[in-house]
Amino acid sequence: MQVNIDRLMGSLFELSEIGRRPDGGVCRLSLTPEDKLARDWLITRFKALNLHITVDQIGNVYGVRKGKHDLPAIAIGSHLDTVTTGGRYDGSYGVLAGLEIVQTLNENNVVTEKPLVIINFTNEEGVRFTPDMMGSLALSEPGRLPELWMAPDLKNPKLLLKDELQRIGYMGSSLPGHIDIDHYLELHIEQGPILETENFQIGAVEGVQGIFWTEYVIKGAASHAGTTPVSKRKDAGLIASQVNLFLRELCDTIPAQLCTLGFSEFYPNVINIVPEQVRFVTDLRNPEYKNLQRAQQLLDNFINRITEREKLLVERTEKVRFGPVSFSKELVDSIQLASAELGYSTRRMVSGAGHDAQMMAQICKSAMIFVPSKDGISHNVTEYTPPADIERGANVLLAMTRRLLNSNA
Amino acid sequence: MQVNIDRLMGSLFELSEIGRRPDGGVCRLSLTPEDKLARDWLITRFKALNLHITVDQIGNVYGVRKGKHDLPAIAIGSHLDTVTTGGRYDGSYGVLAGLEIVQTLNENNVVTEKPLVIINFTNEEGVRFTPDMMGSLALSEPGRLPELWMAPDLKNPKLLLKDELQRIGYMGSSLPGHIDIDHYLELHIEQGPILETENFQIGAVEGVQGIFWTEYVIKGAASHAGTTPVSKRKDAGLIASQVNLFLRELCDTIPAQLCTLGFSEFYPNVINIVPEQVRFVTDLRNPEYKNLQRAQQLLDNFINRITEREKLLVERTEKVRFGPVSFSKELVDSIQLASAELGYSTRRMVSGAGHDAQMMAQICKSAMIFVPSKDGISHNVTEYTPPADIERGANVLLAMTRRLLNSNA
Repeated sequence: MQVNIDRLMGSLFELSEIGRRPDGGVCRLSLTPEDKLARDWLITRFKALNLHITVDQIGNVYGVRKGKHDLPAIAIGSHLDTVTTGGRYDGSYGVLAGLEIVQTLNENNVVTEKPLVIINFTNEEGVRFTPDMMGSLALSEPGRLPELWMAPDLKNPKLLLKDELQRIGYMGSSLPGHIDIDHYLELHIEQGPILETENFQIGAVEGVQGIFWTEYVIKGAASHAGTTPVSKRKDAGLIASQVNLFLRELCDTIPAQLCTLGFSEFYPNVINIVPEQVRFVTDLRNPEYKNLQRAQQLLDNFINRITEREKLLVERTEKVRFGPVSFSKELVDSIQLASAELGYSTRRMVSGAGHDAQMMAQICKSAMIFVPSKDGISHNVTEYTPPADIERGANVLLAMTRRLLNSNA
Repeated sequence: MQVNIDRLMGSLFELSEIGRRPDGGVCRLSLTPEDKLARDWLITRFKALNLHITVDQIGNVYGVRKGKHDLPAIAIGSHLDTVTTGGRYDGSYGVLAGLEIVQTLNENNVVTEKPLVIINFTNEEGVRFTPDMMGSLALSEPGRLPELWMAPDLKNPKLLLKDELQRIGYMGSSLPGHIDIDHYLELHIEQGPILETENFQIGAVEGVQGIFWTEYVIKGAASHAGTTPVSKRKDAGLIASQVNLFLRELCDTIPAQLCTLGFSEFYPNVINIVPEQVRFVTDLRNPEYKNLQRAQQLLDNFINRITEREKLLVERTEKVRFGPVSFSKELVDSIQLASAELGYSTRRMVSGAGHDAQMMAQICKSAMIFVPSKDGISHNVTEYTPPADIERGANVLLAMTRRLLNSNA
């Protein structure tokens, strides 16, 4: 039994029309009108496949295919939201491959021991609201639901997540943990260059590196660009620039460290005014928790030192603190075995990006399957994975799902 | 004959209610509803003083007090627009002191040989539209009017200056040069620390330093913050940060050089995406033209070098190129003399900020009078000049105006 690659590619193309950018990319930020349309589209597909549909209180959408027995379910999930400059594959691939697997099981009249559930998680990307991976986080820590509801839109803080959920009609009534799940699988493009560079077809993902996001608001003083001597300036923008260069140094100093300053806003952001304030968010990642903590500590020391010297104020907010995650060794082994049986080459690897699977790993056996990304490019409109790789990944997911649906593990 | 300081302070406070910020500052960006209200308020005051009112095709507002003879006019001018984080004095002081002088002349039944015109220039600050000092620029170079009309709002490029002029009802029918002016005086707060630090009461301004504004758009590539190795990044934001640090170096290297990066925008400006693009504008100032040109050249060399090395693209647009300006030596001498006669201490100085007077200097004898700024602070809501200084400045302006109105120079 194999997936129908033409049908799966058709689904990917059809979905990518929702939120399509003029440059060919996709912009479907969480809980926007585009995200609503994508969710509506998914529900239409769920209905056509006779899945039992529920929506939970953080907007996660579930479609359940029943098993013979009322046992804990096997879950396949990912997300339909994208970043601003997104492509067709990140997130969507994992959900639509789940749909394809249901359709393959249905047309082969496969009856399984356990139920299978396909999940579209809310706000995986964290572009409009932080933390990212919010929908799956709500499953692993349901107690944080009231806090997550109050997350403000990063660019328009008057808009709260709960109001946006309601506005698009996806504030569901189910609890985030209402379906009992014992295994979770997520199929995703690698978003990095390793599989392509080393010429492997499938990545068996052993875990995810740790991710720290920290927001800093630096407060200096607005002053006139033409009359204020350098010695009298409290230039908040200059602090942000120094931090950006320091982040690059950290990448060169600490093993496997990645640092990014992707979000930065000057205030008042006027040509002839020394910036009074800057708000920026640092993104630090490392597969080793100790290294990640050390990088964060060095960064905080640096910011404290330069702001104290120039007498500027700092407000610091921890937006995301995700330690490195290890997936189920048994599942990772299984992915390698299933791939080998299909004749595909595999490599064990750590994910550089965060994924819903790392949240699910807190509550059930979880693992991820990666396929190559052309030139390692992602979060970019040129993101691309060839159909042959899309097909291989989906076939491994099908094999894994069938095995788990009929096992008693 | 002296000005009425209570009346002048009353005008300053009354006007500062229009566009008042919650923190006590003033935000009255050019051609916004707040600017319209300030213009309407000024016209009401002009009418009460029986001035003949005209509006030109760039929105400059003129109020003429007739003289005995149809001779070229003496002009007093400045601007009512402010920056985002503005105070009560920058610009408004010069226009309202003009009003106060008309009122003083009126109540003393002074008849003058020549006409006196009070001018409120459009968009002196250059926050919404560039170039700054646009209204007075249109007087010195009326041929540029069609180009200036097409200036886009810096943050919302769909809005053009000419449409905004029409929207607020200040697209006048007069030509920018319709009033023949042979002397121009502008009274302004210093916006720097020199008069206060050196304990002088009046600044006799000999000229204005040169100002270059250059917009750079750096184009790299968006990529995933968690998976893209440093070696594969084309981080446009990092380039902007390197430029900001280089600007500070230029200030330390080139005599009397000031450099500011006040406006900077990342795109897509998302935490976990390496910035694909950054747009920023550099503000370079120097009283010596050769030094200013050298600073600009070194900056361009630096930007070309680092973008070529990392294979990013640069688009460069010259937004403002104003060379240093020298005012009329005769008028500057006259200001010192008039101040001495009033018993005020004076200092000759160069203005760090750009002013409408530098444009007017191209078409008539011009000069400026400065009064101290507390702590040298300006373009900031805490901008402050004590009433005693406000009064001294206005009295010097009154003495100068009376002298010029009755001279045949």
